[in-house]
Amino acid sequence: MKDVLSNANFPQDAQGRTYHVATKAGQVANRIITVGDQVRAHRIAKAFDGGKPLFEFNSQRNFLTLTGTFRGVPISIVAIGMGFSVVDFFVRECRAVVEGDMIIVRLGSCGSMQPELGIGSVVVPKASFGISRNYDYFHHDTTSDERRSGALEPYLITKPLDADHEVHDALLAALEADKPQKNAELFGGEQAKAVGNTVNASADSFYGSQGRIDPSFVDANANLMDVIKERRPGVATLEMETFLLNHLAAAANDAVDLAKQNGQEPVHKGKIRTGAVQMIFANRNTSAFISPEECETLEHWAGKSVLTALANIDIPAEKLHPQGVWNTAA
Amino acid sequence: MKDVLSNANFPQDAQGRTYHVATKAGQVANRIITVGDQVRAHRIAKAFDGGKPLFEFNSQRNFLTLTGTFRGVPISIVAIGMGFSVVDFFVRECRAVVEGDMIIVRLGSCGSMQPELGIGSVVVPKASFGISRNYDYFHHDTTSDERRSGALEPYLITKPLDADHEVHDALLAALEADKPQKNAELFGGEQAKAVGNTVNASADSFYGSQGRIDPSFVDANANLMDVIKERRPGVATLEMETFLLNHLAAAANDAVDLAKQNGQEPVHKGKIRTGAVQMIFANRNTSAFISPEECETLEHWAGKSVLTALANIDIPAEKLHPQGVWNTAA
Repeated sequence: MKDVLSNANFPQDAQGRTYHVATKAGQVANRIITVGDQVRAHRIAKAFDGGKPLFEFNSQRNFLTLTGTFRGVPISIVAIGMGFSVVDFFVRECRAVVEGDMIIVRLGSCGSMQPELGIGSVVVPKASFGISRNYDYFHHDTTSDERRSGALEPYLITKPLDADHEVHDALLAALEADKPQKNAELFGGEQAKAVGNTVNASADSFYGSQGRIDPSFVDANANLMDVIKERRPGVATLEMETFLLNHLAAAANDAVDLAKQNGQEPVHKGKIRTGAVQMIFANRNTSAFISPEECETLEHWAGKSVLTALANIDIPAEKLHPQGVWNTAA
Repeated sequence: MKDVLSNANFPQDAQGRTYHVATKAGQVANRIITVGDQVRAHRIAKAFDGGKPLFEFNSQRNFLTLTGTFRGVPISIVAIGMGFSVVDFFVRECRAVVEGDMIIVRLGSCGSMQPELGIGSVVVPKASFGISRNYDYFHHDTTSDERRSGALEPYLITKPLDADHEVHDALLAALEADKPQKNAELFGGEQAKAVGNTVNASADSFYGSQGRIDPSFVDANANLMDVIKERRPGVATLEMETFLLNHLAAAANDAVDLAKQNGQEPVHKGKIRTGAVQMIFANRNTSAFISPEECETLEHWAGKSVLTALANIDIPAEKLHPQGVWNTAA
């Protein structure tokens, strides 16, 4: 902790930097790609105009922000790690320093639950739901009767939440327009493909709540994948972030609507629109896992496509953050 | 992704390194301190014998493992980030590469819910419960009646889970024995104090589920702190990891017991014992926040005390990992 912070309700330093992501107004663009790992963030940033970001900061908590322009449009790439909690830090702390509309696209890896979506496919989900471990199910005070009756289930499955339709369509169009060339060495010689309008599940664990079986832990998940397929027919992918991104966008947009309904000025005039591009790294039907070369191919294609899609979506001038590293760095 | 991985159920590379923490057998000790940020991990590692770790690795996913010895006892410090999901990666992937017993102590910052526990106090909780956002409460398909009836609440509060009693007592004793000197410049001139037997709450957000009010998001948390105090009287601290650590230890230990009851050989013969040391950085009653100098004082005291406590707890030789960097590096 380098700086003095004040206000335990929403800690910010004297320059207005947030506590964990640690950026301030003007360092984050209205259009954001969020990824898990920092290596991926740096690779995508090579496609920025000039081949590099105009602003780069890695916080003590390992949130990496790279802001630059792509075809002249300001875009931030923020690497946040994995899981729901880091999505929460990221969305709330970036919302605190960005005025106007935000478009946030998650770009990450995922597992496939559909045999026809193998390694080499990149999907753009139209909706996402959450799977969370129901801790009390496992508690010693919980009786076998409570478990058997179904009153308490080992995993909580949420209702699905939609991505923004325009963001979805722009992502799919950009992916379709720039497919990697067919290569005998990659994806079993098959053409890599982009698939839209899928349903995603975001789990709070890479292991238990994604139905991975580990006899070292009591996870009560032997039939979890079957339960999920039954309750959410057509579920295509499993990862750990997209649902929370859609959820927090809804919570932010509801706050704007609620303030207006109550005749109040909302804190933010803009809304948050979300989408996701998910690269299939693991096929949960065959237990296959992606090779490093295949990974690089998908990442390059998907990264460039998300930048293109974000640059193509219009944000009216009055909904843009007024001043930032993108117009002061030159 | 540098190496070829196989098995989508539990990906490990050819050397047995796990997918995210990316350590293999012999690189992680039976005794572990887990912290949030890497800077803290490096600071604590200065107290290792020889002033540095024998093994250091930062994974692509930013899990940092530092393994060394303290007074001759092998200990690992693992920096994992924040939130339940990273605790899950850490516990499961470390369990996969450590044979025998594990003692895991969380060392981190927290907020205080008790006026008498101000900045300058370090607490050792005897138990921890979880607070998770109940996503469906916020869904547009949920009716006002469902919300008003209490059938669906905005936050889920779990039953508490105990830390290991011996680990708790060893941590408290080590802290008591090594208190920092009273200093007029720090903690308002008060003596820093160690407090044991407290109850902790671990939330899935730094913001909404810790009752922080942000009008930019609909969080339905205006009375959350009151609800928590009413349902879990005496709750002293708020942070984001300890509950899941206790929960996964229980899930691992239950797996050992269950295998034995079924006359099977458990995957691991050892159990996982957990504890936590929590440094109060924020007082949620007064909105005060710790200064950088106070932070350094608490971190030094707490770090040294956790190392001491871990070294003091006996693990029988047959429950120790047989061979590792601690006896091959010399």
